[in-house]
Parts: sequence; C-alpha cells; structure tokens
Amino acid sequence: MIFEIDRATGIPLYLQIAAQVRNMVTTGTLKIGDRLPPNRELAKTLGVNRTTVTTAYAELEADGLINSHIGRGTFIAGVPTPRTSAIPPERTQPSTMLWSALLADQRSDTWLNGMLLSKQSKDGISLAHGLPHADLFPLEDFRRCVDRVLRKEGRVLLQLGLSSGYPPLQEYIASQMALSGVAVKADEVLITNGCQQSLDLIRRVFVGPNDEVAIENPTYPGAISVFCGGGAKHISLPVGDNGLDLDVLEEILAQRRPKLIYTIPTYHNPTGVTMNIAARRRLLELAIKHRVPIIEDDIYRDLHYDGSMVPSLKGLDRYGVVITINSFSKVGFPGLRVGWIAAPRIVIDHLNIAKQNCDLHASLLTQAAIHEFSKHGLLAKHIKRVKRAYVQRRDLMLESLEKHFPAEATWNKPEGGMAIWVKLPLALNANEILLLSSESGVTFSPGEHFYSGVPPKNMMRLCFTNAGPPAIEEAVKKLGTIIKGRISSLKKQFAVRKPEGIRALV
Amino acid sequence: MIFEIDRATGIPLYLQIAAQVRNMVTTGTLKIGDRLPPNRELAKTLGVNRTTVTTAYAELEADGLINSHIGRGTFIAGVPTPRTSAIPPERTQPSTMLWSALLADQRSDTWLNGMLLSKQSKDGISLAHGLPHADLFPLEDFRRCVDRVLRKEGRVLLQLGLSSGYPPLQEYIASQMALSGVAVKADEVLITNGCQQSLDLIRRVFVGPNDEVAIENPTYPGAISVFCGGGAKHISLPVGDNGLDLDVLEEILAQRRPKLIYTIPTYHNPTGVTMNIAARRRLLELAIKHRVPIIEDDIYRDLHYDGSMVPSLKGLDRYGVVITINSFSKVGFPGLRVGWIAAPRIVIDHLNIAKQNCDLHASLLTQAAIHEFSKHGLLAKHIKRVKRAYVQRRDLMLESLEKHFPAEATWNKPEGGMAIWVKLPLALNANEILLLSSESGVTFSPGEHFYSGVPPKNMMRLCFTNAGPPAIEEAVKKLGTIIKGRISSLKKQFAVRKPEGIRALV
Repeated sequence: MIFEIDRATGIPLYLQIAAQVRNMVTTGTLKIGDRLPPNRELAKTLGVNRTTVTTAYAELEADGLINSHIGRGTFIAGVPTPRTSAIPPERTQPSTMLWSALLADQRSDTWLNGMLLSKQSKDGISLAHGLPHADLFPLEDFRRCVDRVLRKEGRVLLQLGLSSGYPPLQEYIASQMALSGVAVKADEVLITNGCQQSLDLIRRVFVGPNDEVAIENPTYPGAISVFCGGGAKHISLPVGDNGLDLDVLEEILAQRRPKLIYTIPTYHNPTGVTMNIAARRRLLELAIKHRVPIIEDDIYRDLHYDGSMVPSLKGLDRYGVVITINSFSKVGFPGLRVGWIAAPRIVIDHLNIAKQNCDLHASLLTQAAIHEFSKHGLLAKHIKRVKRAYVQRRDLMLESLEKHFPAEATWNKPEGGMAIWVKLPLALNANEILLLSSESGVTFSPGEHFYSGVPPKNMMRLCFTNAGPPAIEEAVKKLGTIIKGRISSLKKQFAVRKPEGIRALV
Repeated sequence: MIFEIDRATGIPLYLQIAAQVRNMVTTGTLKIGDRLPPNRELAKTLGVNRTTVTTAYAELEADGLINSHIGRGTFIAGVPTPRTSAIPPERTQPSTMLWSALLADQRSDTWLNGMLLSKQSKDGISLAHGLPHADLFPLEDFRRCVDRVLRKEGRVLLQLGLSSGYPPLQEYIASQMALSGVAVKADEVLITNGCQQSLDLIRRVFVGPNDEVAIENPTYPGAISVFCGGGAKHISLPVGDNGLDLDVLEEILAQRRPKLIYTIPTYHNPTGVTMNIAARRRLLELAIKHRVPIIEDDIYRDLHYDGSMVPSLKGLDRYGVVITINSFSKVGFPGLRVGWIAAPRIVIDHLNIAKQNCDLHASLLTQAAIHEFSKHGLLAKHIKRVKRAYVQRRDLMLESLEKHFPAEATWNKPEGGMAIWVKLPLALNANEILLLSSESGVTFSPGEHFYSGVPPKNMMRLCFTNAGPPAIEEAVKKLGTIIKGRISSLKKQFAVRKPEGIRALV
C-alpha cells in the first residue's frame, strides 16, 4: 500500500489520504476485509500529524468505507458509492471499468462472513458460532444413504426437479410435523436451501420497499441482514426472560402496521430464552387481531435438553397466521443447505414462484440424501446422540462459568439450543475481550452482532456445541481470567481517577 | 367447485361469478394452475347466458387472476390484490387470515413452472425444454465420485462452508477458463446454485428499483423473470442472424443508461444464433465506451457441434467489462444446481455478500462431487459423448423438418446448443399447434415464452437433446402433419372468404 501526499496542491492532507483509500478500494487494490496501517504508523510514514490520519479515517468510517475495531485495527468494510455526480465516461480513451460506481450500496455483515469463514481456522477453540460438532457426524451412515439414493434413482436426482422440493422429503416433513401436533400437508411445505433462504424468500413475497417488519432485538444476524439491511424499515421488539415483549408489541400493533413479526420463540438466538405457552397464545391473538403474519423460526426446537417442551406457535395456531421455518442445519448437516417453510398453501404458492426465480430448486441429491437418512430413523438416532453430548457441554460450560467468571458477570441456563448468553458489567466491551482472548486462541461472538439498532457492548454469546468438553472448560477459564483482569484494571483506573473526579465536581 | 348465483340481489350475474372465483382463490380453494370450467359448461350449470360467463372471465383475466389459452382452457394464474382499500381487520371476531391481501403482486411464469414440471410426465415426447437426456448420465462414474469425496472429507463437506464456494472447484473453474484463453483467478469465481441464481444475484447487486436493463428479445425466460418481472424496467434488444442488433444497441446507449446488457452470444437461446468475432469486438467497444457491464451467459459454449469456435466475450475483453455466467446444468447434471459467475474481484465481493444474505452458500456435497467428477476428466469424457449424441439428434431433427414440415415454415441450423428455432406462417399460432400436438403426446415450447414484450405467436422452439432419435423423427412428423393441416384449413377458409372480402371491398 503506497500513499502519496502532495503539500503543494493545497488540498487538506486528510482529504488526500481519504481520497487515496477510496481510490484503492474503487480500483480493487484494497478489498473488503483488508487492513489499513495503524494511525500512528501511517502518520510516521507520511510525516504528518497523527490527527491528520485519524481525521482521514473518521471521514472514511462515516462513509461506511472502513470499520475500526479498538485494538484489532482498521479494515475495509465497504466500497464507495458516488457522492457527487457520477464520473462522465471518457469517450475518447476507453479505460477500465469503475465498478464501484455501478454497484448497489451493500455492507458486509462481518458476523455472517465470520461464521462462514470460522471453520477454516483449525487452531484454537471457537465458541463463536452455533454449529454442530463435525466430530459427531455419523459419516458412514450418511455416506451409505447417499450411495443408496444414487443407485436407486440417480437419473431422477441429477435431472431438473420441482421447485417446491423433492416430494418424498415434503411428505416426510409434513408427517413429522403432524406427529408433533402440527397439521401440515405435503403441499404446504416448500423445500429451501436452509433458513437463510427461507427468510429471503419470505421477504421477497411479503415485504415491499416501504414496509416495516417487527423483529426481535437481539436476534439471528442473518435475519437482521434480510429484514433490516439496505435501508429496509423495521420495528425492534425487545426480548425479555419470556421471549419478545408482548406489551411493546401490543402498543406497536395499535399504531403501526408491520408486514410480519419475526420471532424465535424456542431457545431464542442469542438469549436462549423460551416463550411460555400463555405468552404464545397471547402473541397469536395479537397477530390475528391485527392480521399480521408471524414468522416462527423453529430451528432449535429439536435441541431440547430439559424443562418442558412448549408447543410451537404453528401447533397452537387456530387461525392460520403462522409461517414456520426450520432446517436440517442445526440437528444435521449445515453444509447440505436444506431447510423448509411450512405455511398455508396460498403462501407456499407465492414462495414457490419466488424460489423458481431465485434458483429453480434446491439440489435434489442433498434433498434425497437427507430424506433417506431421516426416513430410516438415522436422523432421530443422531439427534439423540448429539443432544446427550450437547447437554453435557452446556452443563460443563455453566459449571465453568460459575468457577471461572467473576461475580460481576451474569448468564442464563437455556433449556435447549446451542449457546449461553453472558452479560458483563456495563463498563466492559466484549470486542476488547475477544481481541485479548483470540490471542490465546479462544473466540466467541460479541453480543453486538445480534442487535439491529445501537447495540450494548457488554454482551457475549458462548456456543457450547462446536467444541469438546475439555476445550470448553479451557476456553471459559481463559475468558474468565481476561474478564477478571479487565475488571480489576478498570477498578484501578477508577480508584485513581476517583479523587480527580471528585475534585472536578467540587 | 360450487358456484351460486342469486338473481334477487340485483348484483349483475357476471360480477357475482367473478367475485366467487376471486374468493375461492383468496381462501385457497382454487390454486394457481387450477382449471376453471369451460364457459359453455358453467353457463349451462348456472342457467345463465354464455356471454355472462365470458364477461366474468374477461373481468378476471384483466385483473391477472386467470389466463385463457385457446383450446386448452382457462386457468388460475395469480391471486387477487386488494383493488380498493384493504379490508379492515375484524377486531371483535378473529377469523382466518386474508393472505392474498398481504402477498406481493407476483405472476407465475408458466414456462419456467412448466420446465420444472416437465420431467414428471413420463408419456409422450417432449421437445419442450433444453435439458440433457437423463439416459446419457454416466451414473456409475458420478456415484463413485460422490462416494469418494464423502470418504475423503465428509466432515468438511457436511459442515458449514464458504459463501464464495468450495475452493478446489473455484480453482478448477479458473484453470479451465484459463485453458480456453480467459484469464480468471480462483477468487474471481463465485459458485452459485446455477445460472438462475447468478442472474438473480447480479440483479440484486446492480439493479435498483428504477434502473433499466438491456436484454435480448427473445431470450431465456428465467432472465425475463429476473430482469423484467415485477414491474422492472428493461430495454429490448432485437436478435438477428448475428446475435443482438448492435445498431439498435448503439442508438440506445447514446440516449439511455442501462445498468447492464444481458446477452447469450454463443448458441443463443432460443434462436440458436452465434455472434461473430467482429460483432463481439464492437459490442465490447460499445459497452466500455458507455461503461455498461455485459452479462455474458455462456451456458451453451461447450455444446459446440460444427462451425468455428468463437472466443467468449470475456476472452476478448481487454477492459474488464464482462461478467460471465455458466453452469454444469447443460453439460452435466441440472438437478445438482451448481453454476458460477466469473467477474472482477470487486464485483465478486459484492455478489458474495448477496449470496450470504440469500442462502449462505451452495451445497458443499454437490460442489465437491462435480469437482471430483470434472477433475478426473469424467466431465470432459461425458461432454464428448453427449455432443456425439446431440449432433446426431440435431441433424436428424433438421432432416425430419425438411421431410415433414411444410414449405411455409423456416428454421435455422444452430452450430451448437440444444434447440432449433422454427418460424411458422404468421397466420399460425404455436399455442394452437401445441394444443393439438399434446393430444398425441408431443410437446414443445411456443416461442412466445421467450419474449419480454408483445410476442409473435408463430414461433416454436424444438429441443433435440432430451429425446432419442426415433422419438425426434416421430415428433417432428406429427408436428408437420398438424401444421400442414392448419395451413390447409386456413387456406380453405381464406378461399371461401375471399369472394366475400372482395365483395365487401367493392
């Protein structure tokens, strides 16, 4: 990265630096995720005041071009959009394309991106992402299922299929839902490439440019990308100990008309809370009264460890107001990308058209493979096995938290799901903890990624599914030590500053 | 389907009938694709004048709710959107949801839907869709590849992957493109779920609500859905014997600013024409002069039978103005849903973010399987084999057309691809031919599905890849007989009417 400044031009130096970064991003020299030199270093190299670089970076950050993370550094986060009029084409001398001026204004979701990259880092212990543990995959069973379906109907599976899904899988899902008390017919099930696509299809079909979606806050970051990204309007629903705050929802519905209510009522991500049956009934009443569909994300339902099983919203729904999404990614294999939407037939018809326009249909081979695996009871057997492992890991994480975390931190005990939601003292910043812990190989998700608005900085989500028991204890211990260290260092600062503060007040 | 009319209400009978159909669609009793009773029959049942039913159906057709196809009948084609103010929620007595008022105004693309359904009909001969012949799939080879990758790295393939794709597949594609003279690096390749998704991702990243896309007319119906659906603006580019009309494009670019130019320059779908190298160079010059990216759909490239191989636009591109899309669906296995986009890195970065928001990533198992199959030369071997079969089928279709089609019909000889584009006399309607031919089990695609504007009715696309040689000859013979019959019947009508017409003129 070579910066050049020219004091003779009279253009403020900070603008020169900002312009050069912008230019390097436009031409592709700098890419999203690339790191910029630290302020101090760049100031030294260019022989300018450190404030000049800070101002340049602040300018770029305000434009959404870069992101600074205390301690981690400054990274390219977006590409410039034309701020003034577009540059006129050079008609006499054709040159390369100025792509950045043509591309829609998009921000990379660093958490989503991080999740997709996380499995690449082999070292260290990741408590960051809610993924199954690959060591627990019943590979042989699955391989045999794939082999069997290819032998049995390979020519069908490799040819183009139906956009609504592989019919035996739709039937299987409907029958399984019926067993759990949810009356759904096979043609009320649409197979998708997982919950992320389900959310995207639902957005396409229901949400227009000026429509609002009511969404839990905090929630799954992929839902924030879909419903709150690109300037989409949304309404935040706070999440308490019993799920989304229904008093707030009631007030909102009296005044505004959201197109959808998105909720994860069972083992909520990231908080782990579950809405009780009375609250579910009230939510359904509110939704039908105002005729606002509920999107129930039921992806964690089968990872139930203790406490009573609460029926799904779809199971309690007497009005047909609920659209349920689910997938094989948490209980089975996320790499396959197979999920589904269960909804009234008219909704499925619309989603099906959207699915056709998106990508024709989901891979038939993977659909048939997961069907074969499920139908022969192998999925149920696998779920039983991972639940045994995960409940142990959850309990071990809870014990480790008791043992190693300071008294100032608090957390819940989720009855299912994949993670524990930890609250640190307000003065602590989970990003700083992550920076320190990742140096010793331990990562987790700072809570801020799960919020659609201005996030609190003192929350952390610790996943217990994707690391073995010794690793969990080791990781929690390391995190505890770091957090205790930060607290005591803050206390010291506070102790030193106190007299000053008091003097200032006097 | 039970209709009830009440003469006592004073509401015109045709409005009562229309309202009942609307209601049955809203409540889901009637679904998209369902057939309504024929005018005559319904009129008889209800004891009303036939004109009453015709008027009711015309009303519904004007609303986009139904589609009438001469001879085939009348079908539900959409759902009602609220025409006046939305019905106020019934606050005292909650009832079921009125979904249709909430859903975005979408029209089902009957051709796309038909393509996805076509393989379900086992009887008859389909020349309708550009699909590989499943009988030619090298099942054993492929099955062994799938088995091998699951044994080798099953735990990686079943876990969450990277949104940009399975890295060995990206590298393989880049290396293959390099072999054909297109310099592309692995990180300039994004793996998608096939060309349909590639188009959709490109639309997301480049096309805003008021942007125009310049698109060949006729073209691939899936592209029409993506770029011209839902009220999107587009500019039609006529297609001549040498591909898209560059004079028209030049004129358009002088006045308007399309965000993209979408073209299938090699073995164009549906016309089969290929743009020569001089035209390609001129297209590139025009695109860079006006800085409008070209989306090159290169999906038929490897199905080359004779004539010279013309380099791809991407291969000729000195400016970096071309984004190429391609897939394994035409040469390999459409059911797998694996395709790719090759573009400058900054474009790929943006598409990658869109891909994350869409569905996280493409199925890893299918990506690894097609990579294994390709890397060991099995794809190349398979392509060689299908090309031998397809060129024979094309030649047989051409011979059969000569033998069985009337002199009034004309067609081209495509040097590659999957179909022959036939022009019938203007007075003929390909939909009527299809209606007659499907009664004897022969289907094809009427040309109208490939047009974004008001389509000519006298074009037909006959695919030669997805039917065996005896079936091709049989199908063309049947079609020829029907077409000849229609022509002679029209001639007779014309002969009878001529005197009248002359009398009227006199």
